Parts: sequence; structure tokens; C-alpha cells
Amino acid sequence: MGDFVRIIGIDPGLRRCGWGVIEAEGNRLRYVACGVLTPKVDAELSVRLAELNSGLADLLDRFVPHEAAVEETFVNQGARSALILGQARGVALMTPAARGLPVAEYAANLVKKSVVGTGHAEKAQVGLMVKTLLPAADFKGADAADALAIAICHAHHRISRQRLRSFA
Amino acid sequence: MGDFVRIIGIDPGLRRCGWGVIEAEGNRLRYVACGVLTPKVDAELSVRLAELNSGLADLLDRFVPHEAAVEETFVNQGARSALILGQARGVALMTPAARGLPVAEYAANLVKKSVVGTGHAEKAQVGLMVKTLLPAADFKGADAADALAIAICHAHHRISRQRLRSFA
Repeated sequence: MGDFVRIIGIDPGLRRCGWGVIEAEGNRLRYVACGVLTPKVDAELSVRLAELNSGLADLLDRFVPHEAAVEETFVNQGARSALILGQARGVALMTPAARGLPVAEYAANLVKKSVVGTGHAEKAQVGLMVKTLLPAADFKGADAADALAIAICHAHHRISRQRLRSFA
Repeated sequence: MGDFVRIIGIDPGLRRCGWGVIEAEGNRLRYVACGVLTPKVDAELSVRLAELNSGLADLLDRFVPHEAAVEETFVNQGARSALILGQARGVALMTPAARGLPVAEYAANLVKKSVVGTGHAEKAQVGLMVKTLLPAADFKGADAADALAIAICHAHHRISRQRLRSFA
């Protein structure tokens, strides 16, 4: 198990935060678990963010990943929705980093390209390819599939990232 | 000390996060402490957000406030900067809520109106009025003064907020 690494991928959102855990050893990937965190909608914003934080912290306790990967948010819907998404994203980035995990960020296009082969793939294509790469993966909606795609993207890019960093 | 409450005001930001702690008893206000958190600029975003979280957590340990107040971010600078500010704001809202503190949010205009008397006050006026209301306050820049202003605003509004909530 030389280059074995357990990765958690996170697709941040305040209403639905997708997560997926995989293990990578060289080019081999293994599905571990996935799901969606859904903080209570009727609570105050700060309470919803605290619930997202404790939900993610529980996952880190349960699966003990070595590294985390979070999708870089694409902001094309105006400043108001960017602010709301940013708040959930801040918690998603911070929670693993506060435990000392390296947290990588990947643009949505790169995630799609890593999994489907093109940066302009549809949601359904991402889900199909995740299912092909991780046959055991058991997800119902796009949020968990996207989170697994982010984890797969990180499994593909983490070595070159480390090389880049060692030259920096 | 019947209605005595210790309040932390937070002016969220990734480069400079202002904070100010006051005590309120009825209409009487007392200055406790203030300052600015400045997470390292050259670290990765997730690490900077984790540093902001641990800095705020240290303040909560040190001053043990009963309630927190955070300024509602005014987003007029495009989606990209709203996303960045949102990330810091998510951590600022979440950190006290994760400890069970009530976290109130106030629009910038209401904060200015509470302290200066008008919603269109200049930064310098806010600082002067904070210094008048809290003569012992020892701040150098606008960030800590703004955070104290947020705490003062909450001291003025928390009772009516509680009344409103009890009718809801």
C-alpha cells in the first residue's frame, strides 16, 4: 500500500452538500462511501453553517481521509448567490484544513474533463462515468456523484500537484 | 447584573477580520477588548480560513461572550469578490454558532444608524462615535472600530429581537 491515499471530495452547498470518499493506489480507484449533507433549511444561517461543519467533521472522523478536494465554485449568478455559496464553501474548505488535511481545489471544467474527457459534459454523463470508474458507487442524485468526480479528479492530479509544489 | 450580556462583534474579512468585545447592562455599555485577525496571506485559501476559524475560536475561549453579531455583507463588487468575502463570512458566522452562541446579523446601514444616527455615515464618523460610546476603546484602524460598532448595534437591538422571536 505504498502510494495508497484516501480522498474525500466535497461539492459544497448550503442546502445540499455532496460528499464522496474513495481510495486511490496508483491508477487504481476504490469506492468507499458517498452521500449528501442537508442542513435544516428553516434554521438561521449561522446554525445551518454550523450543522454543515459538524456534518463534515463527522465524515472526517468516520472515514479518516488523508486529503480533501473541493470544487471551485463557478460564479455566474450574481453577487447575492455568490455570497451565499461562498459561505458554505468557506466552511467546506475550512473544516478539513482545520484538521491539517491538504485541501485541493479544482475548477468544475477540470473535474468534468478528468472524469468524462471533456470540460463541457452534462450532469448525467458525469454520473455515468463515475459509475463506470467506481462500479460499487451507490448514489441517487447528482450531488454525491459530483463529489465522487471531484475525488477522482484529485486522484488523477495529486501527484503532478505535489511535483509542482516541490519545484516551487 | 440581571440583564448583563457580553457580546462579540465581528466584521468578517479574509485579509483583515475585525473583532470587538463589549458588555451591555440595560443601556450601559462597557468596553472589553478589540483587535484584528490577519490570517497569513501567502497560505492556501483553506489554510487561511482555518486560521481565521482558530483565531475566532481563541477569542471565544478568552472572552467567553454570550452572543455574537456579524455585519451583513454588502455585495456591490461583482460575484468574484462576493464569493471570496462569503467564504470568510461563512467561517465568521459558523465558529460562534458551532459553540451554541446566538449569532445575529445586521445590515451595514443599521450598524451605522445605531452608532452615528444615520445609515450613510463615513468610516471616520463611526470610529469617533465608537470612541464616544466606549471611551476606553483602544483601536487603531477601522476594522476593530467597525466590529465594536456591530457589537453596539446588537446591544441596542437584542431585546427587541428577542421580543419579536417570542411572538413568532
